[in-house]
Amino acid sequence: MDKLFASIITIGDELLIGQVIDTNSAWMAQELNKIGIAVKNRIAVGDNWGDIWNALDETAKHAKIVLITGGLGPTSDDITKPLLCSYFGGKMVIHEPTLVHVTHIFEKILQRPMLEVNIKQAEVPDVCTVLMNEKGTAPGMLFEKNGVLFISLPGVPHEMKWIMSQEVLPLLPKKFKTTPIRHKTLLTAGIGESFLAELIKDFEAQLPPSIKLAYLPNNGMVRLRLTISGEDEALISAQIDHQFELLKQGVQEYLVIDNDLPMETVVSNLFKANGKTLATAESCTGGYIAHLLTAHAGASAFYKGSIVSYSNEVKEHLLNVPLEVLHNHGAVSELTVRYMANNCRNQLNTDYAIAVSGIMGPEGGSDDKPVGTVWIAVATSKKTITKKINLRYNRERNIQLTAFNALNLLRLSICG
Amino acid sequence: MDKLFASIITIGDELLIGQVIDTNSAWMAQELNKIGIAVKNRIAVGDNWGDIWNALDETAKHAKIVLITGGLGPTSDDITKPLLCSYFGGKMVIHEPTLVHVTHIFEKILQRPMLEVNIKQAEVPDVCTVLMNEKGTAPGMLFEKNGVLFISLPGVPHEMKWIMSQEVLPLLPKKFKTTPIRHKTLLTAGIGESFLAELIKDFEAQLPPSIKLAYLPNNGMVRLRLTISGEDEALISAQIDHQFELLKQGVQEYLVIDNDLPMETVVSNLFKANGKTLATAESCTGGYIAHLLTAHAGASAFYKGSIVSYSNEVKEHLLNVPLEVLHNHGAVSELTVRYMANNCRNQLNTDYAIAVSGIMGPEGGSDDKPVGTVWIAVATSKKTITKKINLRYNRERNIQLTAFNALNLLRLSICG
Repeated sequence: MDKLFASIITIGDELLIGQVIDTNSAWMAQELNKIGIAVKNRIAVGDNWGDIWNALDETAKHAKIVLITGGLGPTSDDITKPLLCSYFGGKMVIHEPTLVHVTHIFEKILQRPMLEVNIKQAEVPDVCTVLMNEKGTAPGMLFEKNGVLFISLPGVPHEMKWIMSQEVLPLLPKKFKTTPIRHKTLLTAGIGESFLAELIKDFEAQLPPSIKLAYLPNNGMVRLRLTISGEDEALISAQIDHQFELLKQGVQEYLVIDNDLPMETVVSNLFKANGKTLATAESCTGGYIAHLLTAHAGASAFYKGSIVSYSNEVKEHLLNVPLEVLHNHGAVSELTVRYMANNCRNQLNTDYAIAVSGIMGPEGGSDDKPVGTVWIAVATSKKTITKKINLRYNRERNIQLTAFNALNLLRLSICG
Repeated sequence: MDKLFASIITIGDELLIGQVIDTNSAWMAQELNKIGIAVKNRIAVGDNWGDIWNALDETAKHAKIVLITGGLGPTSDDITKPLLCSYFGGKMVIHEPTLVHVTHIFEKILQRPMLEVNIKQAEVPDVCTVLMNEKGTAPGMLFEKNGVLFISLPGVPHEMKWIMSQEVLPLLPKKFKTTPIRHKTLLTAGIGESFLAELIKDFEAQLPPSIKLAYLPNNGMVRLRLTISGEDEALISAQIDHQFELLKQGVQEYLVIDNDLPMETVVSNLFKANGKTLATAESCTGGYIAHLLTAHAGASAFYKGSIVSYSNEVKEHLLNVPLEVLHNHGAVSELTVRYMANNCRNQLNTDYAIAVSGIMGPEGGSDDKPVGTVWIAVATSKKTITKKINLRYNRERNIQLTAFNALNLLRLSICG
């Protein structure tokens, strides 16, 4: 039997001129993998009749499932629905339940009159099965041709995710025999990709060919991922678990966690487990550490808040950094972050506090303190540890890496 | 003459299991568009010999320029370089300048011994032109076959961007006759996509077929983009400028700005122009507004900082919200955000302050105040305006939309 593959087609000129970043495909791929369906490829095309048509033809050569997002809006640049109608040889008809739903949205939720163009949202090709979109006006559509399932979904992320979760993901295992896939990922910090490869070369040498190892460097960490697939779920689980243990032993001194979690979640879980509290005093990261921590539900269990002291005035008045320290040592100095961390901890009454101050660029560097110079402090009631790092990237990445390094220093200080 | 198209191939299993979001393609597409090269399609494939090979064959059918990113790392899962060597019929040789450069990185910057695997980074197919990568160890490579240019770049974003900016983008206009493209984008807020379409249907009806209109809804705004391409730069510029003026008039009352800028940049520019200062008091957004404002260089000209009062304790002690207000009205109430905004403005000594407090979900809602309930205040020395919004999305999107609404309320209060 041929291996079961899915393909993802994303539609929209905005993808080809770079006006939006496609986050839908990554989410869809993750969800498909969880139920044992591998993605063969992803294709992004514009709102162009011929290109969409070709993409449908091409993907159906290798995939049994073709997921299509985008191009379903009510406006004239969206051509996906008439194209699919033509591709699958149907004609457009009003789908009554969708019309009732769209009418309800306009009358009850938006409280605005419905326009002609909104009624068109309820039209679908008569050759499709409609997948109801409770989160918006554009319905999902399912077509079948020569044993290939084509599923068209709106491009708005929360609408796409809703239809996928409610309709598509439960359906696929009933339609196809899926091959179980297992991924196991761990995080390392403090070692580069090539040194890691050197460190675990014996592990790699003994790895059976059925298990694939991938190196995923990102934001100061390298993730290592093992992947296996096979019919016998118990067998592949046992095989990957065994190899994962060997891998963990191999990278032991650089291991952050044996799971695929962002650093802020690793830190959050430590705080939730030990019942301690945290505050942050952020200069150069401008609230980014606070944002990372509070982006995940449940942060209120340990995180009290941040004093984002972007200006020196705020460092002086809210964080009580003495003016002579700011003058003599500078805002980016060990002594300043010591004061920031300790006074933040006192002001917000927490067990731990992080402070960061640095020069993120592109402006503001000097010979003495070039762009990328960052001081970090972690304070507890007992001691304050500090670290200086030198970054050499653009502003966005310097901010990300400062946040990562601050959270990692906090993690190390908790873990001892 | 055939229209000049580029295609983008991104390589890596992590793209097909959804472990990373591809931001490279959007950036590359933007830069290509600026120099008049349209992207035909983007294809993501795994670290799989056959799939990469097919993607090269397929894209070369329609594109004269094929940009390839990823799969150039030093580890065993990266197969792009040997594959390209084979595809273009070369053999691997050491590229001396790259070896010197890689040696320099290890000896001077990383101060670590170089490994065998790092020396391999300096090997390239003898049929390519090397594009030096000053930001990393994997060189870019340029191949030519049947009039099609294939350019392989590392997947690490800042390395890819460096080689594109220094080598690729200057080269392409010398190699190909490009057709100028013009895009003009404006932002609207406070009106949905379909109502906007109804509002400007007369504009759409008179739009010449050479100009394409796209609706790009995102985070509470709808962007409208006009696109034209043609040989005569003066002519297409005049045509698009004329239509853009008509479009601006058509959407006047909803117009945020006649440019493609994020809301935080619109607000930042207003502050920089009028010399006023800003602080934020953030509960539910947890520092996200501060992060948006400080993600762009130059924020220190007007932005002093934020008190991220994630816990009520911080609202009470640092923002002086009276305990009885928190008890009787709740943390998510008009009176609380009024206190937060005014006291933040006083504490941080600024002209303006924004405060937000709300329930982002998935937990924390009640019948009275369901998930998505948000109060926003904007305070100046003269007055405080407030607004209640009701969001109905997931946590991530609720945070984004709260920040957007707060910045928009600030914008409206400045513009009167």
